[in-house]
This record gives sequence, C-alpha cells and structure tokens, in this order.
Amino acid sequence: MLSQTVEYALRAVIQLAYNQPHLCSTSFLAEKTKVPPAYLSKVLQSLVRSGIVHSQRGVGGGMTLQIPAEQMTLLDIVNAVDPIKRIRTCPLGIKTHGVNLCPLHSRLDQTLALMEDAFRKATLADILAEKSDSVPLCETTESPLKPLLELRHAPENA
Amino acid sequence: MLSQTVEYALRAVIQLAYNQPHLCSTSFLAEKTKVPPAYLSKVLQSLVRSGIVHSQRGVGGGMTLQIPAEQMTLLDIVNAVDPIKRIRTCPLGIKTHGVNLCPLHSRLDQTLALMEDAFRKATLADILAEKSDSVPLCETTESPLKPLLELRHAPENA
Repeated sequence: MLSQTVEYALRAVIQLAYNQPHLCSTSFLAEKTKVPPAYLSKVLQSLVRSGIVHSQRGVGGGMTLQIPAEQMTLLDIVNAVDPIKRIRTCPLGIKTHGVNLCPLHSRLDQTLALMEDAFRKATLADILAEKSDSVPLCETTESPLKPLLELRHAPENA
Repeated sequence: MLSQTVEYALRAVIQLAYNQPHLCSTSFLAEKTKVPPAYLSKVLQSLVRSGIVHSQRGVGGGMTLQIPAEQMTLLDIVNAVDPIKRIRTCPLGIKTHGVNLCPLHSRLDQTLALMEDAFRKATLADILAEKSDSVPLCETTESPLKPLLELRHAPENA
C-alpha cells in the first residue's frame, strides 16, 4: 500500500536533513539511501517540483531541503511523489451516486483519511528527534544530527 | 494508496454477492462492475486462488462466492489481490536495525497497521447491509439483495 516511490522519497529527505546546510549530489544520496540512482533522480525531480527540495545546478551544485524539518510533514513528502487520492465521487461514474459515496467507497475513503491523518500528524523533525537505537539510514546508534544539535544547544559563552 | 486491483476485486465480490447463489460469467461481472474483462479475469484468478471465489468450469459454469459475506472481511479481499505488506525488518537491510525498526519505518508500519485494522473490522455483509441511498454498483437506490432478504425474513405461513 506504500509505494517504493514514497519509501525512497522519505529516505532522500532524511539524508538531506542530515547534511543540512550542505548540498548533496544525487550519487551521494543514492549511496546513502541505497536507492538506484536513476530511480532516485526521478523521485528528487518530484520533490523539487513540489518545493520540498531545492536543486542548485552547476559546479559545486546539489540538493538541499527547502522547508525546515519542523514544518515538513510526512504527508507533504508523500503527496509530492505519490499523492493519496481521496475518493470524492463515485469511481464507477454512477450518476445517482455522484458525491454521495456508497458504503464501499465511503469505507475505502475513510481508510485513506486515516492514512492521511497519520502522515499529517508526523513532521520530519518528529522522526529525526525520536529516540531510538535504530537511527534512520544509519548503522550507528547515534544520529548524524547529534553534533549539530549539541552545537546549536551549547551555551553561548562556552 | 489503494490500487486499482483492490478496487476491482471489491467490486467483483460485491456483484457476486448480489447474484448468490447463481454463478456469474466473467463477461457479466465485467459489465456490471465496469472493469475491463482481461483485467477482471486476472483479479478473479487471484480471488479463486485465495479461496474467496469458487470457479466452476464448463457449460453453465461461472463464479460464485466461496465464503459467506458475514465471514469475509475487506482485509481478506485486499490481501487476496494486493496484500498489505507490513514492515517487519529494516527495508534497507541495515544489520544493526533488523527487526528493531527506526522511527521512520516504525511510523510507516503503524500507518499500515491502521489500514489493516480498518479493513479487518469491516465484513462484506457490513457493506451490503449498510443503509444508504447509494447502493454499491447500482443506479437504483434499492439493493439487489432486498428481495432476497425479504424472502428470507418472510413469515413461514405467509
């Protein structure tokens, strides 16, 4: 039910967050996320088009996140690459149904709404901040964001 | 997030329920469910393989439901044609993660679990019995099951 495209997009966005504010090349991202480069390239294009990722061309160019992790929900990422298609009108085109869905499609749409809600409630920052021995994309138990977070939170006169 | 295959399988099963105990041909089902016959044929094969639909070959043959509507959940139908693949181990194959999912995959799996639960809780009978002006697959506001239900519930000495 979750497409490969969604899985790959989420990995890419996490890796980009780890490398902020530095730019990442597609080949670097492909290696870190274990995604075939050609496939990743297409996924990144969708993320760029939707304004989630910024792409800088030319020598020393690369990609970076366009939106802060606190403001980016999983739903934003999912909808950028493989949108959740809520059922608004009868999929069979039955005229007498129209927007009044039958019990089947009403039930299916409720399930899609559940999914949408779950993705809307989680931000990228939530995922990155959650304590766990399994750090997304990493063999180590320590988040690549840790030194950055420590630096940010260090006393100013230290 | 819901595949065309799932949508078509649910339509086919509902149409088969309407026609119980009569056998239905693929072409009849295709017309009623508005599904391309070749596609429907493949979907029906999966439903037969999983024991949801019984197929009788030969002259006068056709298809019928193998399981009573009260005992068939939407999850049974979904899993017969396009199974919900819960995330049990790290999709990146990171050894230190194994079955201890990281916050990303743990969150994704929880979303799949929500979907699975919603489909498990609804039986085919629930869908067919739910009162609505929009009857699944039908232009009319009256369920094709109504005469059958009335017959079943008619007083014996009527």
